[in-house]
Amino acid sequence: MKSHRRELWFDIPTRRAFVNITSQVEETVRQSGVAEGLVLVNAMHITASVFINDDESGLHQDYEDWLERLAPHAPVSQYRHNRTGEDNADAHLKRQIMGREVVVAVTRGRLDLGPWEQIFYGEFDGRRKKRVLVKVIGE
Amino acid sequence: MKSHRRELWFDIPTRRAFVNITSQVEETVRQSGVAEGLVLVNAMHITASVFINDDESGLHQDYEDWLERLAPHAPVSQYRHNRTGEDNADAHLKRQIMGREVVVAVTRGRLDLGPWEQIFYGEFDGRRKKRVLVKVIGE
Amino acid sequence: MKSHRRELWFDIPTRRAFVNITSQVEETVRQSGVAEGLVLVNAMHITASVFINDDESGLHQDYEDWLERLAPHAPVSQYRHNRTGEDNADAHLKRQIMGREVVVAVTRGRLDLGPWEQIFYGEFDGRRKKRVLVKVIGE
Repeated sequence: MKSHRRELWFDIPTRRAFVNITSQVEETVRQSGVAEGLVLVNAMHITASVFINDDESGLHQDYEDWLERLAPHAPVSQYRHNRTGEDNADAHLKRQIMGREVVVAVTRGRLDLGPWEQIFYGEFDGRRKKRVLVKVIGE
Repeated sequence: MKSHRRELWFDIPTRRAFVNITSQVEETVRQSGVAEGLVLVNAMHITASVFINDDESGLHQDYEDWLERLAPHAPVSQYRHNRTGEDNADAHLKRQIMGREVVVAVTRGRLDLGPWEQIFYGEFDGRRKKRVLVKVIGE
Repeated sequence: MKSHRRELWFDIPTRRAFVNITSQVEETVRQSGVAEGLVLVNAMHITASVFINDDESGLHQDYEDWLERLAPHAPVSQYRHNRTGEDNADAHLKRQIMGREVVVAVTRGRLDLGPWEQIFYGEFDGRRKKRVLVKVIGE
């Protein structure tokens, strides 16, 4: 069995953003030499997500509005977590909706994705360095 | 290490539906010859889900009502994504709540599920052909 | 390829609770002898979750309040599932938000977690025995 590990680093200048990381994950699979297996892609931070959906800017704005409605940032005093001096409780909630990780099949050395599937890093509390872990296993 | 890949095809006549696919996934695990490993089951489309929950029709109607409340289909003009000519933005949102994929352990050649766990395909924008990927790895 | 399986048992005296299970999962990885691979940690019950987030009690109370707002327990008659004699429909909904499972990379024999990542069992319908499955595969 082969395995390969890579970290992707982000330093998003805004509080929230979605970044398409499909080509970086594809490249990592190629580096691994794995032909058949699985790749795990997960946020290493608990106010960020990795998820799969469409690379369409209107949809991303819809996600932004929708997540803000389900888990509003303000007033920050509505969350107990923010009494610790943080203002990011909403980011911990938004990340649960969008998810921590995706697992993607590797087939014949490539990401086995459907026609519109793209992998995204979802940032909900940016303006600092954060990481995504890519771990490939297989043969 | 062994690996095995299968696509399940769906052509749901309605916009939304839940389909129990547990026996098809179990059959795929049997075909793989894997005794100990993992099976990934994921929607290959971004307006559909694979999830695990109860096979109880009242609960499925509760999911339908609840998802419609959290991410209403109408008015379709409320979503920027629908300005592209689509009317399925709500389906992209609903699918994030229900999830893209499940990973299930394979133990002694069988799906290692709890007593009530059943695997479902969740369709949120049907009336066309769509696929689920089943990938088994192990030994 | 190596594999290792362990069940963690819970009997939570309240309806809802979050329990940090990181050290039990770490111990299971150690027992497995796997140096490089993946570990799947999933609730075996459909009214419970396994998720990764912060071990901060204020945040956990925020989750409790937020989930109750998104999927209220009462009135129990609002859910069709509860006509079967159950009163736990809300627990099936809450678990979809928080998720069934996490997959974590194993690197050099350890859980490959970010600095604040902790693994939790989320109970939404307790007061009876329930299980979490830990399955490690790798080499």
